[in-house]
Amino acid sequence: MDISQLIQKNNTKIVFIILDGVGGLPINGKTELETAEKPYLDSLAQTSACGMHIPVGYGITPGSGPGHFGVFGYDPLKYEIGRGVLEALGLEIELQKTDVAIRCNYSTIKDGLIVDRRAGRIPTEKNIELTTILSEKINEIDGVKIILKPGKEHRFCLVLRFKENILENEAMVKDTDPQKEGKPPLDPEPLNSESAKVAEIAKKFINQAKDILKNEEKANYVLLRGFSALPHIPTFEEKYGLRACSIAVYPMYRGITKLLGMETLKVEGDIKEEVELLKKVYKDYDFIFLHIKKIDSFGEDGNFEGKVKKIEEFDSYLPEITSLNPEVLLITGDHSTPALLKAHSWHPVPLLLKSSYVLGGLSKAFTERECLRGEIGIIPATSIMTLVLANSLRLRKFGA
Amino acid sequence: MDISQLIQKNNTKIVFIILDGVGGLPINGKTELETAEKPYLDSLAQTSACGMHIPVGYGITPGSGPGHFGVFGYDPLKYEIGRGVLEALGLEIELQKTDVAIRCNYSTIKDGLIVDRRAGRIPTEKNIELTTILSEKINEIDGVKIILKPGKEHRFCLVLRFKENILENEAMVKDTDPQKEGKPPLDPEPLNSESAKVAEIAKKFINQAKDILKNEEKANYVLLRGFSALPHIPTFEEKYGLRACSIAVYPMYRGITKLLGMETLKVEGDIKEEVELLKKVYKDYDFIFLHIKKIDSFGEDGNFEGKVKKIEEFDSYLPEITSLNPEVLLITGDHSTPALLKAHSWHPVPLLLKSSYVLGGLSKAFTERECLRGEIGIIPATSIMTLVLANSLRLRKFGA
Repeated sequence: MDISQLIQKNNTKIVFIILDGVGGLPINGKTELETAEKPYLDSLAQTSACGMHIPVGYGITPGSGPGHFGVFGYDPLKYEIGRGVLEALGLEIELQKTDVAIRCNYSTIKDGLIVDRRAGRIPTEKNIELTTILSEKINEIDGVKIILKPGKEHRFCLVLRFKENILENEAMVKDTDPQKEGKPPLDPEPLNSESAKVAEIAKKFINQAKDILKNEEKANYVLLRGFSALPHIPTFEEKYGLRACSIAVYPMYRGITKLLGMETLKVEGDIKEEVELLKKVYKDYDFIFLHIKKIDSFGEDGNFEGKVKKIEEFDSYLPEITSLNPEVLLITGDHSTPALLKAHSWHPVPLLLKSSYVLGGLSKAFTERECLRGEIGIIPATSIMTLVLANSLRLRKFGA
Repeated sequence: MDISQLIQKNNTKIVFIILDGVGGLPINGKTELETAEKPYLDSLAQTSACGMHIPVGYGITPGSGPGHFGVFGYDPLKYEIGRGVLEALGLEIELQKTDVAIRCNYSTIKDGLIVDRRAGRIPTEKNIELTTILSEKINEIDGVKIILKPGKEHRFCLVLRFKENILENEAMVKDTDPQKEGKPPLDPEPLNSESAKVAEIAKKFINQAKDILKNEEKANYVLLRGFSALPHIPTFEEKYGLRACSIAVYPMYRGITKLLGMETLKVEGDIKEEVELLKKVYKDYDFIFLHIKKIDSFGEDGNFEGKVKKIEEFDSYLPEITSLNPEVLLITGDHSTPALLKAHSWHPVPLLLKSSYVLGGLSKAFTERECLRGEIGIIPATSIMTLVLANSLRLRKFGA
């Protein structure tokens, strides 16, 4: 069902918090959430509707893009964001509808064969130096503006900014990375009849870059992949009638929420600074998304204790958030990142929804095992926003 | 989503056990699983991820074909195996891509009307005698090889073996069984423009058989139904990248798993012999399917106590299986067969998944009611394989 036909506006406030990668697995019998001393979260869970959500599907481990799309109610299998677009967002390039974004590697070519796909992982400083030179020497190709931004080590991002809007189909060009060393680079071939123009500009860029880099020992070639344009996605305003903003320290998440039409507020620091900003802008929006990143980072590092401490730190700020008294407070993760696995995982994610219209009394704490006892059950991530809207009385009755 | 695009291979082992028809219903308050003394299964359930699966859909009672297709991750509504193919597999005919398989009944015809659709359920010995005569007298029709095999009582199987591959469409011919006595048999009419050839051979077979059987008192005619060719199904290797084998005593299950490209290992006996074979071939495969049939047979007979004993017998072999220490051990049924109903049923089926990456601690025993408390929840059967692959770390992340 298209939920937008049921939307009714009102003055309720929704605070939507993603504790990135919060779900975990037991080490010595207890998960990160079960180990953390978090009196405020546990107390909130006791009076909230709790449950678990499945980010993409049973057994499927989501990347950050699909993980966030799901909890925001956008089917991650329908809205796939191109790799180039995600990379550009992560590097804080302000993508426009006229852009094609491409992930690039510096690489080493010899006698027509790629001998090192990552140019020996050149230092980031060298990357910045080379990307600056390329930027200066290649401003535009056939009237298309060339935008370059260095990433880490051998990675950089290329944006082709056309004069007219670019449809997703028009960006579909084949990766040039042969994926194995000792093979020649591939041509940026158009993958359909509409992408010939983008392929041609890409080819010219590769040749010009090759000429400029020819005297480099390692980084004497560039490989291009993940050609993509901004997907056409209905905004939060269009889909839900919500004036929404996002509070996130990391550019990637600002980028994702910008795709959905949220106002992306810039903030430096960590949880403290984010919560301060939340309080400051609280009155200006219907929906405020707060993204807490470092819980996931500790999980990815396999740092169980660090992840526990970060959860405890978040807990200490929870009273400042609950004292705002939003009609709906939602707390969950975009996926699980068990320290045991040192990576994102496929496991369901604990979910807590505080509103005046829940049963409560079913979960003793905000943990995986206690949320499994909750009234929400195990739901697809894409159903979370519908529950949030219902609990803020923003959905009309369906049918007579 | 097509899971095959996320597959990554590794050296993990998966043991996948189907206790055929294991789910049950209470008689005097307890189900078969709740009555059985099964210390090993119950202990395993306490440290495993437990749940229930729905074989085909809420309220739908599956046959053995759909039941197994579902748990193996093949949508039973998409991959329908023809009745003729199932019958041939059950009779251990080695079907080829050039074959059309047809279920046949001996029947009694009088004055052009079918007066007994089952020829008075002639004894199997008589069936064998007649089918041997038909086999000897009808070797081929218009260059198409005729293969016949007797079943039980009045049932036999006819396979038309062509020289060229037969597509599913080409086998679609109308059943000749009028379904009611006192009516004339129907013609084997082609159901589309591509099946005329098969229909014609079938018609000739019927006429030749009628001529050969004309002096029989009861079995003087044959009725044909379930015309079908081997469906085109991606194999386990293609779909999951798994070298898979099946260990099953009954031909039907060897047939089903052969359709999915598993190596079907022959074994005589019961649980003891199957577990011995499992241990012997364990090192040779990524995925070993073990099928335990007799639990279902007792359920079908309404023999509650027999079913309980068979579950207990399986339990006594469980330590031999767990001592192999596979990365993933999955135990479930293809459907429920409550002794109370003396038949397959629509009920969800208990499910246990042992791996290093589960919460555990939520179910006290391997029973219907305890599995309902588990972390997996109630899932469609087709999601089981995705969870199995995830837990053996054989699925890559989806999206960036």
